[in-house]
Parts: sequence; structure tokens; C-alpha cells
Amino acid sequence: MASSLPPAVIALQTELSRMPGVGKKSALRMAMHLLKSQRDDVARLARAVIDVKDKVKICSTCGFISDTDPCHICNDRKRPGKVVCVVEQPTDVIALEKGGVFPGKYHVLGGVLAPLEGVGPEDINISGLVARLEPEGIEEIIVATNPTPEGEQTAYYLSRILQPKGINVTRIARGIPVGADLENADDLTLTRALEGRVKLD
Amino acid sequence: MASSLPPAVIALQTELSRMPGVGKKSALRMAMHLLKSQRDDVARLARAVIDVKDKVKICSTCGFISDTDPCHICNDRKRPGKVVCVVEQPTDVIALEKGGVFPGKYHVLGGVLAPLEGVGPEDINISGLVARLEPEGIEEIIVATNPTPEGEQTAYYLSRILQPKGINVTRIARGIPVGADLENADDLTLTRALEGRVKLD
Repeated sequence: MASSLPPAVIALQTELSRMPGVGKKSALRMAMHLLKSQRDDVARLARAVIDVKDKVKICSTCGFISDTDPCHICNDRKRPGKVVCVVEQPTDVIALEKGGVFPGKYHVLGGVLAPLEGVGPEDINISGLVARLEPEGIEEIIVATNPTPEGEQTAYYLSRILQPKGINVTRIARGIPVGADLENADDLTLTRALEGRVKLD
Repeated sequence: MASSLPPAVIALQTELSRMPGVGKKSALRMAMHLLKSQRDDVARLARAVIDVKDKVKICSTCGFISDTDPCHICNDRKRPGKVVCVVEQPTDVIALEKGGVFPGKYHVLGGVLAPLEGVGPEDINISGLVARLEPEGIEEIIVATNPTPEGEQTAYYLSRILQPKGINVTRIARGIPVGADLENADDLTLTRALEGRVKLD
């Protein structure tokens, strides 16, 4: 008797709560929402879930997502390929592309090194990056992982294995975000901002 | 060029962000998660979404969710039906049932009155409650809407329309939650706790 949620609600709650950032409570709220939605809307969501798996391809070269493999960025012959920007996730590529700030090609690691969580070099797409170096004539790797301890560690690891291969490994600058207040920046950001100071002329 | 997310990802992001508490960013994070999941897991989620709509029924008597209509609580002849507890959502019934604290029957409004958001008495299941009064011989309505301004307003409205029909309308007590600190309680809760004081003996 006690709890008494219908099994189909519990099943949906379980499936939804597998997703990142979705707890049991918000999964139940979503399930209740779907229960009260029009059948068409529910069917459209179910279709979209299947479609994303069936129609979207992960680029076998760079790891980005696209309708084609290789993706449209790797396929773009007008983009210079000597400088490759390494990011953690496909969404990072989107952020950089939205700004149109980087004209080269990308490599998506699909994560960062996190030894404490058991994520080692073989768990993220580093071998794929190494395999691209020679055939693509890559000269510089810009490591644009997030400025977290794991992101820094991954950058350091990449530098250690790629520099001996004659690759110029650089890291995106850390500093005060444009438009932000100095007084709200944390110590590490301030330290990095000072270290990374540039000469004015 | 610019943004460049595959259409299927944007479609899923749009569908997911229709759900309560899911913004564009978390919808994208979920979409990326599904993209990387096994096809079986994705199919199971899609199935669960459809099942919840197809298999779960909303009780035409009380508005609770169940595999049957009327629901198993309304169907339970051993439960006394003279006292009906009115709640906002099916999840509130679950909370009360889990504790086994209320032996009677329920009525789910499916919301609260919120004139500023255009939610009037005809938008929540008040007519269904009024229709139950006579056939079920209801004597008391316990209004267990949340202690928010809208919940209070709804309780007041129900009292105003039900008392003239000879129904005893009561409100769940507001006060300091068991186990909580007095110093952490807000002023309104403290006020209600003092107003609702009971004689010790």
C-alpha cells in the first residue's frame, strides 16, 4: 500500500534520474508534467530522444557531433588545420564557434583526466588526437580545457606527451573575465591574471 | 555556420526544456548525455515516456494517479470517506500516504489559485470536489495546500464556498517543523506557531 506510485511513473522517474543533474525529485516532477501533457507532445519528446541517437553522428576524427562523419568542421577544407583547439565537450566547440573566435579545427576529448574518479588517459580521446598529428601536419595544440584542477592536469599531461613529438602545446589564458569585477575574482584567478600580464604600449 | 548543433540535438533540447525546472543549458546537457548513452538505454527512456502517458490514469473522482480509474484509494471501501484531504498535486498524496498519517480519502486540485498568473477557480479541480460532497456524504474538508500565499488563498477560497454548504473546512497546522531549530524559522512560521499554540497538560 504505502507509497503507491503507478509502476509506469516509477519506471519513468528511474530513467529520467539517470540524466546528469536530474535527481529523484525533479525526475518525478518531470514525470508528472508528462502525464498531464498532450499525447502528441509526449510522443514528440519520445521521438526526439530516439532521433538524437539515430541521426546524430559523433565525428570519428575530432569527436564533435554533427549530421555527418567526418563532421562539417573537419570536412571544411577552407579551415586551416595546423592549429587544433582541444576541448572537453562538444558544447565547448559550440561556444567557441558561436563567437567565431577560432578559425582552426578542434579535438573533443569527451572528458578530462580525473585519476581520483578512475578516469585515465585511455578513457578520454587522447589516442585519437595523437593519431591526427602526422597525417594532418598539426603544429600547435591549444589546450582549452576548463580552468579546473582536472582541466589543468589534462593540459599538463597533453603538454608532456605532445611536446616531445615536436608539437607546440599552448594553454588558453586565464584571467579576469571581460566585464567582471576584480573584487569578485577568486585568488587563483587573480594569481593567473597577474602571471599572465602583458606589456602595454 | 556559426552555432552548428545538429537539428536532432536542437529538437531534443527544445522538447526537454519544456519540462518544469529544465532550462536550455541543462536540456543540452541531457541531450549530450543521451547521445553518448547506449541505444538500449535511450530506447528504454523513450518507451517509459510513452508508457507513462498510455498506462497511467488520472482518477476521475479525486485526480490522483493510478493504474486504474477510479484509483485504488477511491476504490478502497475500507477507507472512511467522510473526511477528505485536499492537496495541490498527486505527489502530495504520495507524501501523506508514505507516512500513513491520513486514513481518509483525497482530492487533488492539480494546482492552486494564482490570479496574477491567470489561474482561477475554473482552472483547478474545484468543481470536481463540490460534485463529490453530496454523493459521498463528505463532512469535513482538510485543506492541505502548501503554506504559500497561493496555497493560503486557495484554502480561504475553499472555505468561503464550502462552509455555506454545511461542510466543516479545516486547514493543516502551520508551525515549527519537528526537528527544526526555532532560530532558523522565518517570521511568518513563528507567527503561525504562536497563533496555533496548544495547551499542555
